Amino acid sequence: MSVKVIDGGVTAAKGYKAAGLRAGIKEGKTNKDMAMLLSETPAACAGVFTRNLVKAAPVLWNSNIVYNYKKAQAVVVNTGFANACTGEAGYADCVKTAELAGKALGLDPNLVLTGSTGVIGVPLPMDKIEKGIGLLAESLSDSREAARDASEAIMTTDTKNKEIAVEFEIEGTTVKIGAMCKGSGMIHPNMGTMLGFIATDADIAYDVMLTSLRNIAEKTFNMVSVDGDTSTNDTVLLLANGKAGNPKITGEGASLDAFNEALLYVMTELAKRIAEDGEGASRLFEARVIGAPDYETAKVLAKSIITSNLTKCAVFGRDANWGRILCAMGYSGAAFDPAKVDIVIKSENGSICLAKSGQGAGFSEEEALHVLSPKTIIAECNLNSGTESATAWGCDLTYEYVTINADYRS
Amino acid sequence: MSVKVIDGGVTAAKGYKAAGLRAGIKEGKTNKDMAMLLSETPAACAGVFTRNLVKAAPVLWNSNIVYNYKKAQAVVVNTGFANACTGEAGYADCVKTAELAGKALGLDPNLVLTGSTGVIGVPLPMDKIEKGIGLLAESLSDSREAARDASEAIMTTDTKNKEIAVEFEIEGTTVKIGAMCKGSGMIHPNMGTMLGFIATDADIAYDVMLTSLRNIAEKTFNMVSVDGDTSTNDTVLLLANGKAGNPKITGEGASLDAFNEALLYVMTELAKRIAEDGEGASRLFEARVIGAPDYETAKVLAKSIITSNLTKCAVFGRDANWGRILCAMGYSGAAFDPAKVDIVIKSENGSICLAKSGQGAGFSEEEALHVLSPKTIIAECNLNSGTESATAWGCDLTYEYVTINADYRS
Repeated sequence: MSVKVIDGGVTAAKGYKAAGLRAGIKEGKTNKDMAMLLSETPAACAGVFTRNLVKAAPVLWNSNIVYNYKKAQAVVVNTGFANACTGEAGYADCVKTAELAGKALGLDPNLVLTGSTGVIGVPLPMDKIEKGIGLLAESLSDSREAARDASEAIMTTDTKNKEIAVEFEIEGTTVKIGAMCKGSGMIHPNMGTMLGFIATDADIAYDVMLTSLRNIAEKTFNMVSVDGDTSTNDTVLLLANGKAGNPKITGEGASLDAFNEALLYVMTELAKRIAEDGEGASRLFEARVIGAPDYETAKVLAKSIITSNLTKCAVFGRDANWGRILCAMGYSGAAFDPAKVDIVIKSENGSICLAKSGQGAGFSEEEALHVLSPKTIIAECNLNSGTESATAWGCDLTYEYVTINADYRS
Repeated sequence: MSVKVIDGGVTAAKGYKAAGLRAGIKEGKTNKDMAMLLSETPAACAGVFTRNLVKAAPVLWNSNIVYNYKKAQAVVVNTGFANACTGEAGYADCVKTAELAGKALGLDPNLVLTGSTGVIGVPLPMDKIEKGIGLLAESLSDSREAARDASEAIMTTDTKNKEIAVEFEIEGTTVKIGAMCKGSGMIHPNMGTMLGFIATDADIAYDVMLTSLRNIAEKTFNMVSVDGDTSTNDTVLLLANGKAGNPKITGEGASLDAFNEALLYVMTELAKRIAEDGEGASRLFEARVIGAPDYETAKVLAKSIITSNLTKCAVFGRDANWGRILCAMGYSGAAFDPAKVDIVIKSENGSICLAKSGQGAGFSEEEALHVLSPKTIIAECNLNSGTESATAWGCDLTYEYVTINADYRS
């Protein structure tokens, strides 16, 4: 692979600074709750957003900016409250947030994007947001620690911060992509996850990067499900400030291929980490549908398998319940011949065929339990009807998921 | 209401006998596992079946009979194994079951319907099925107890047997409908629930009763979800043997209206009982969408609300989390204006408005907790955009659901 993983987060690429700290938004809690990302100069910016009809104020604000202005320089994020279902007053708070950040950073507010995640329907505490913005602007740094602080500050029920950085070459020039994201519950993105921020120093045309972001989101974040619930706030932003100095990518070719390979790697890794850290999850559950006549069929089937509550419970219970997998494929709406399906379970403990041609393969329960025991479980379903494939990522359904969501107003 | 609920089950209408007993199919368990229903004479028979692409053998057998012969006289049901994903051998077992029952009852096998529910992918133990059929044929009775035995014998993870009987008049003649059903997990019927058997002594033309069954299934069983998983075995059968002696119902009019009113009552009650007895459920959760521009919109929204894992967890935790309800409406795919939606929660403890015009209504958390405490919780969502409405039934998502499905191979 020509993409190299490097230590770092959202500040890894040239010309980006970040900060993350506690502004006191989440009452009685001690963790960080606000983050900021700044590019030294305006960056081309593409975004993909929730398709939920109920859209949070930051989704409305950001989509207007990225679709119309196509560039941005700063992002301000708060956790604690989602600023969704807050009406015109909520939208005004979002505009005010961008204005406050613009003032603190000396930028046009139309270059400032916002992000919110947390409880729906509660107004933002604007006094704390204002104070937080001032502190963030003073703390901005391109250090490793600053990137980590920012990635920690966007967490809600996440148990781990999620960041990644890679480098690769475009026509002899080293280019980097740094990224962070959050997401643990209300995860069934219909575009991207709760919040994802990707910062690259590549020089790339807006239209080209928008196409890359959309296509890759479709195969990565959109293939993740924790609980089947599509959030009101889902947002993935890709900033490209051109500081790497590569010959500008303006269309198809080897340079775009290299960029797409790196972006696919970054977004796949983040998508898997979200699934793995799903609320209450004890296992990452990957469904691979292969031998499909077309990609769409494979995609619908893979997503149906990882979304089923029954397959998720079976993964939790290490139950080799292939009938539930085939059942979830059957109600997905995709056309296939159940009598041709082979189901193989794989993990670091080996692999075992559970079903052959749509019927039980007469496997050893003991061996199946062994294969189902590690932290990452892969179900490979071969339709034996073509050469296309798709992968989706989910997690098991556990007691902890119920505990988290019976108690947490989100 | 002109429909009167009477004590009784599937044998309440004239000319029906039933039996339920233990044939030893579920190893190591002591509960009943086979049931039989017999009409004295061939009855007009309509059915609705799962739309899961993976169909169990009894679904294939029964749909062929009810679509082509349009009549039946007996039904044999086993629990323990679903006879799904069992291939040609499984279908042969299903045919053999009908033949054995036909022989024991002196009937053409094409008048015998079958039903199976339980673990997917395991062959039926035909020796036990054969022995069970013999015992059932000897035990048939029109008594209250026999109906109860049959309703108990079709249970799997159900905690309660589900039966009902009603009587009403058609042109001065008393007509009865008796029914039983089962269903607790893998419940998200795309037609009817796991297994439902409705026996009436009404005299009614096949085409008319098929239309009634389909339309009413759409508004009752199809509006229930326990876990979003559509089973491979879903089947609802309606038998009408004409023994009541009413002037035959052959088309629209007051007689059909009376019949439909009674059938709607029976199927609504059974649908609610399935939701209430959902695997691990502690609460019945009813979503009513009112003020909709059309029925389809109301239906899609109501079903999305009760299917969301997050609303289900909130009901379990008695959390007045209206944001999750609006969020689930938003990703349903139905078109509506979130800024017009009012959300009211109702129960035997009163009612409370949580959201007005898409925003929080500033309610008392203490009062909300009180309203959310009883066993049955209703969420009424007014779109304020028309006069159509729809109701869907679900249940809360609890620790018990996870326990049942992490351990049970089904």
